[in-house]
Amino acid sequence: MRKRPSILVTNDDGIHAPGIYALWEAMQEMGDVTVMAPNTEKSAVGHAVTISDPIRIEPITRHGGFEGYAVNGTPADCVKIAVGSFLEVEPDIVVSGINAGANVGSNILYSGTVSAAAEGIMLGIPSIALSINTFKSDYYDLAKSVAQTMMKKVLHNGLPKGTLLNVNVPKCSASECSGYKITRQGGEYFLDKLEKREDPRGRQYFWMGGKIINNDKSDDQDGNALANNWISVTPIQYKLTDNSFIDTLSNWGFE
Amino acid sequence: MRKRPSILVTNDDGIHAPGIYALWEAMQEMGDVTVMAPNTEKSAVGHAVTISDPIRIEPITRHGGFEGYAVNGTPADCVKIAVGSFLEVEPDIVVSGINAGANVGSNILYSGTVSAAAEGIMLGIPSIALSINTFKSDYYDLAKSVAQTMMKKVLHNGLPKGTLLNVNVPKCSASECSGYKITRQGGEYFLDKLEKREDPRGRQYFWMGGKIINNDKSDDQDGNALANNWISVTPIQYKLTDNSFIDTLSNWGFE
Repeated sequence: MRKRPSILVTNDDGIHAPGIYALWEAMQEMGDVTVMAPNTEKSAVGHAVTISDPIRIEPITRHGGFEGYAVNGTPADCVKIAVGSFLEVEPDIVVSGINAGANVGSNILYSGTVSAAAEGIMLGIPSIALSINTFKSDYYDLAKSVAQTMMKKVLHNGLPKGTLLNVNVPKCSASECSGYKITRQGGEYFLDKLEKREDPRGRQYFWMGGKIINNDKSDDQDGNALANNWISVTPIQYKLTDNSFIDTLSNWGFE
Repeated sequence: MRKRPSILVTNDDGIHAPGIYALWEAMQEMGDVTVMAPNTEKSAVGHAVTISDPIRIEPITRHGGFEGYAVNGTPADCVKIAVGSFLEVEPDIVVSGINAGANVGSNILYSGTVSAAAEGIMLGIPSIALSINTFKSDYYDLAKSVAQTMMKKVLHNGLPKGTLLNVNVPKCSASECSGYKITRQGGEYFLDKLEKREDPRGRQYFWMGGKIINNDKSDDQDGNALANNWISVTPIQYKLTDNSFIDTLSNWGFE
């Protein structure tokens, strides 16, 4: 009999979020799960790591047998710590999520959920980032079944070294869902505008507000697929050199 | 006469760091400078943005006429705020640095310095990230002249939409420097290992430690060029889709 896979579960909404509980439930049925996640919400932390503060790790239990470790750090920290120092054996897969809110377009650069999976692939472990296109926790059934499907397919097929899967699940039931679609990272981005306010002491402060801009209407882009109730699956890699610009740049005449 | 360019200067070491002062000095000679930077060190914050906390902006002066704005946020926040809400006219260029310590290889994913430039290009503004391969502040002369050269060349030639330049300056004098080299992002990464300690109350805590691993010896890679006293100039972009994997993934048999 094939041995049960070992699964590292993390997220950026924090270890007490409903999404990581749903993911833990789904993964429990598939293998041996270790949960290591931030002790509080760390949304939009990007690929931050904690180098200037001491790190603490605390065991956490929730109802239903959920056990995990809370870290006063970022999602990337959690993966680094679990893989590099905490787990005796390297996990077979890292699954990050289930994030409340889609991670598509340019916004994946800000995503702690995706950064945890990015850390996974940098350590050579197949990794999946999983998000759902809603901030309400009434829609996890489809996402849980997607988590199981994706995890099985990744372990069966493998992923290229350095590539993760960024999976976004629509806000709908299985019967309303259009199915799976392989997508490309779209151009969707957040246009920020500071909102000025005054505190009770009369001092100015600001909230970061704004709106989502999407000028790209192609069918195969992550945000558009998601809006049409597709489960969006995007392969993501971090080789960032703009090779197409190397020749031009070489002719700029640096002495 | 051509109008003086407007230059947005930021960093991740914080507005009180020596590196941003050196950069301000260099840029003052070239155009009209606005400095907006984190109020404290924000190293390794990656592409984090502040969405859950109120933001405060405070005017700062230092010796020699240095004026700027300190933000209780990340480097990416500073660029978002300056461009989206603070400056009346969009800057001609964003220059981020001078970072104490190189930003090469996989480590640019964690870099606040590079993320500020990434935010710049997402907003459509040509952007440069500038780092120096030392943590000592005795070596800014070469980096200041590099900042001026790079800034002139970028404004003269332009950059492709969505591409920034990641520039790393060696720890040496101009006479010891090998010159400019156009490079590719290398495979250099940080292998983390937690170091366990005990606080005065007997509770465990950890520091993130570790070492740099570089298995890639090619001449044209950022870290290797830098080690050989070249000024490394790498064009960086954030189209993250792994297009080479789309076909294979499409054949995984998603129903």
